Amino acid sequence: MANKKHTDHFRRERQALNDLVMKHANTGIKRFFNLDTQAYEPGALDKRTKELLGLVASLVLRCDDCVLYHLIQCKDAGIGTEELTEALNIGLIVGGSIVIPHLRRAVKAWEELSSTPPTP
Amino acid sequence: MANKKHTDHFRRERQALNDLVMKHANTGIKRFFNLDTQAYEPGALDKRTKELLGLVASLVLRCDDCVLYHLIQCKDAGIGTEELTEALNIGLIVGGSIVIPHLRRAVKAWEELSSTPPTP
Amino acid sequence: MANKKHTDHFRRERQALNDLVMKHANTGIKRFFNLDTQAYEPGALDKRTKELLGLVASLVLRCDDCVLYHLIQCKDAGIGTEELTEALNIGLIVGGSIVIPHLRRAVKAWEELSSTPPTP
Amino acid sequence: MANKKHTDHFRRERQALNDLVMKHANTGIKRFFNLDTQAYEPGALDKRTKELLGLVASLVLRCDDCVLYHLIQCKDAGIGTEELTEALNIGLIVGGSIVIPHLRRAVKAWEELSSTPPTP
Amino acid sequence: MANKKHTDHFRRERQALNDLVMKHANTGIKRFFNLDTQAYEPGALDKRTKELLGLVASLVLRCDDCVLYHLIQCKDAGIGTEELTEALNIGLIVGGSIVIPHLRRAVKAWEELSSTPPTP
Amino acid sequence: MANKKHTDHFRRERQALNDLVMKHANTGIKRFFNLDTQAYEPGALDKRTKELLGLVASLVLRCDDCVLYHLIQCKDAGIGTEELTEALNIGLIVGGSIVIPHLRRAVKAWEELSSTPPTP
Repeated sequence: MANKKHTDHFRRERQALNDLVMKHANTGIKRFFNLDTQAYEPGALDKRTKELLGLVASLVLRCDDCVLYHLIQCKDAGIGTEELTEALNIGLIVGGSIVIPHLRRAVKAWEELSSTPPTP
Repeated sequence: MANKKHTDHFRRERQALNDLVMKHANTGIKRFFNLDTQAYEPGALDKRTKELLGLVASLVLRCDDCVLYHLIQCKDAGIGTEELTEALNIGLIVGGSIVIPHLRRAVKAWEELSSTPPTP
Repeated sequence: MANKKHTDHFRRERQALNDLVMKHANTGIKRFFNLDTQAYEPGALDKRTKELLGLVASLVLRCDDCVLYHLIQCKDAGIGTEELTEALNIGLIVGGSIVIPHLRRAVKAWEELSSTPPTP
Repeated sequence: MANKKHTDHFRRERQALNDLVMKHANTGIKRFFNLDTQAYEPGALDKRTKELLGLVASLVLRCDDCVLYHLIQCKDAGIGTEELTEALNIGLIVGGSIVIPHLRRAVKAWEELSSTPPTP
Repeated sequence: MANKKHTDHFRRERQALNDLVMKHANTGIKRFFNLDTQAYEPGALDKRTKELLGLVASLVLRCDDCVLYHLIQCKDAGIGTEELTEALNIGLIVGGSIVIPHLRRAVKAWEELSSTPPTP
Repeated sequence: MANKKHTDHFRRERQALNDLVMKHANTGIKRFFNLDTQAYEPGALDKRTKELLGLVASLVLRCDDCVLYHLIQCKDAGIGTEELTEALNIGLIVGGSIVIPHLRRAVKAWEELSSTPPTP
C-alpha cells in the first residue's frame, strides 16, 4: 500500500487538474469529457477489452499519463499480468522502439499497482 | 462476393508487395515481420481481442492500410458490427476528429466485408 | 466553375461516407460528430479564426482530407489568400518539411477554390 | 506575482537553453530560429490570431513547452479566457483525449498567468 | 527507363506543385524551402549520410512523398541496396509495424529506380 | 566527469527499468529488444551512420529518452560536434519548430557528454 506512491500521486494530481479544467471549461469541453468516460462503459465489448484498447491506443501515441490511467483501470478490471504483457507487446510492435521508454514506465507502474496486498 | 472489389484488391496488392519486401529484406526485417505476425496469435488474450487492439492502434495512428488489414482479420475472427463500432468509437475519442477520414473509410470497408453472402 | 472538379468530388464523397458512418454509428460517435461541428461555430472567436485554427491543426497533423475541408470553410468564410498563406506558413514552421507535400496539395486546392467566378 | 513560479522558471530555462543552442548552432539552425520568430509577426493576420494558431498547433502535436510558450504570448497579446477556452476546445476535438493531459497543464498555466495583479 | 513511370510521374508532379507553391508563397515559406534544400548539402556529413537521414526521418514520420523523394536522392548519391535496406530496417524498428505500408511502397520504388539500364 | 550527472543518472535508470521489463517480458518483447540492438550493429552502414539515423529518427518523433540514448552512442562512436549539429539541423528542418524543446535538451546533454576529460 505504502508503495503505491507514484500512482496515488498521479490520481490526486489528475483529479485536481480535472477540477480546474471543469472550472474554466465551456460546454464543448465538458461534453467531450463525458463522451470520453462513456466510451469505456461496458456494452457489446466488456470493460476489460475497452480498457485494453485505451491502453494500447495510449501506448502507441506515447502518452505517459494516458497509459498510467488505463493501467489503473486495467488493474481495477482484473486484467492479469500475462494479458497485460500481450497487450503491451502489440503496442510495442505497432509503435516501434520509440515506444520503449513509455513501456518501461508502464511496467514499473504495473509492478507498483500489483504489489499492493489485498485490503483485509 | 463480386462487390468485395476494394478489399480483394488490397489483399492481392499487399501480398505482392510483401513478397517484394521479403526478396530484398535482411535478417532484421524478416524477423520483424515474424514478430509482427506472432504478436496477434492467441495466448492469454484471444484472437478477437488482439485484432481489436491492432485495429484501434492503427486507427489512432491513422494508417488506412493497417486499419483495413485488421478489419479483415476482425471479420474473419467473428467480430460483430456493434463490437466493431464500440472499438472505433474508442479510437475516435482517443485520436480526435483527425481520425474521422480514416473512420469513414473503415466503415465503408466494413460494409463491403459484411455484405458478402456466405459461400454455399 | 467547371474546374472545381477535385473539391466538388471531395464534398460529395465526404457526404456519402458521413451518411454511411451515421448509418452504423452508436450514440458516442454521433455525439462526437455534433461536438466537432459545434466547436467551429462563432462564439468569443469568430468563424474565420476558428476555421484557420482547424486548418493549421489539420496541416501539422498532416491530414489531407481535413486540410481540404477547412480550406473550403476558410474560402466560404471570406479568408483572403494573403491571410491563408500566413496561416500555412505557421503550419509549415511548426510541423516542418514533412508538411510540404500537404502544403502543396493545399495550395493547389486553394487555387481551384479561388478560380471560380462568382455565380451571376 | 510570487505565484508565477512555474512560468517564470520556464522563461529563464528556455532562454538559457536557447543561448546554448545558439552557441553550437550552424547557419541552418540559426536561420530556422529566425524564420520561427518571423512567422508570428503581425501581417495580414494579427498577432492574436497567429499566437492562437501556434497554440492550437502545439496542443494537437502535444508539446507542453510549445503550449506554454504560446500561452504566455497569448496572454501578452491580450487574449481573454473565453477566447482561449474556445481555441483549446478546437485543439481537444481535433486531437482527441490524448490531448487531455496537455490541456490540464495548459489550464493550470493559464490560471497562473491570469492571477498576476497588474504592476502598479 | 520506360519502367520508371511512377518515379517520373512523381518528379513532374512535385515540380509543378512546387512552382504553384512558390507562386503564392510569402517570404517565410520561400526561406523555409531554401533552408530545406541547404540542410542536405554536403558539409561535415557527406551527401549520402544526409540523404539517409532524410529518408529514415521521412519513413518514421510515414510520409510517402518524402520517402520517395529521398529514395531518388539516395539512388543519385550512389547508395547501394544493402545500405538502403539497413537504413529501412532502422526506420522499421524505430517506427514499428505502422511503418510497413510505407516500407512496402519504398521497396517497390527502389526496385523501379534500380531497374533502369545505364544510359549509353 | 563529476558533471555528467544527468547522463549518468539516465544510464542507470534505463538499465534498471530494462531489467524490470525483461523480468515481465514475454518472448515477443524479448525478441523485439534483441532486434532493436541488432539494427545498430555495423554492416553495410557503419556504426556512426546508424547511430545518427537513430538519433534523427528519435528527434523527429520527439522522444527525449531515445534522443539521449543515441547521443551517448554517437559520442562513443566518435561523432564530432559539427557532424552532430548537421544531423540535428536535418531533424529540425524535417520535424519543425515542435522539435525545438527536444533540440534544446539534446544540445545540453551533448555539452555534458563533451565536457568530460579523457580518463587517464
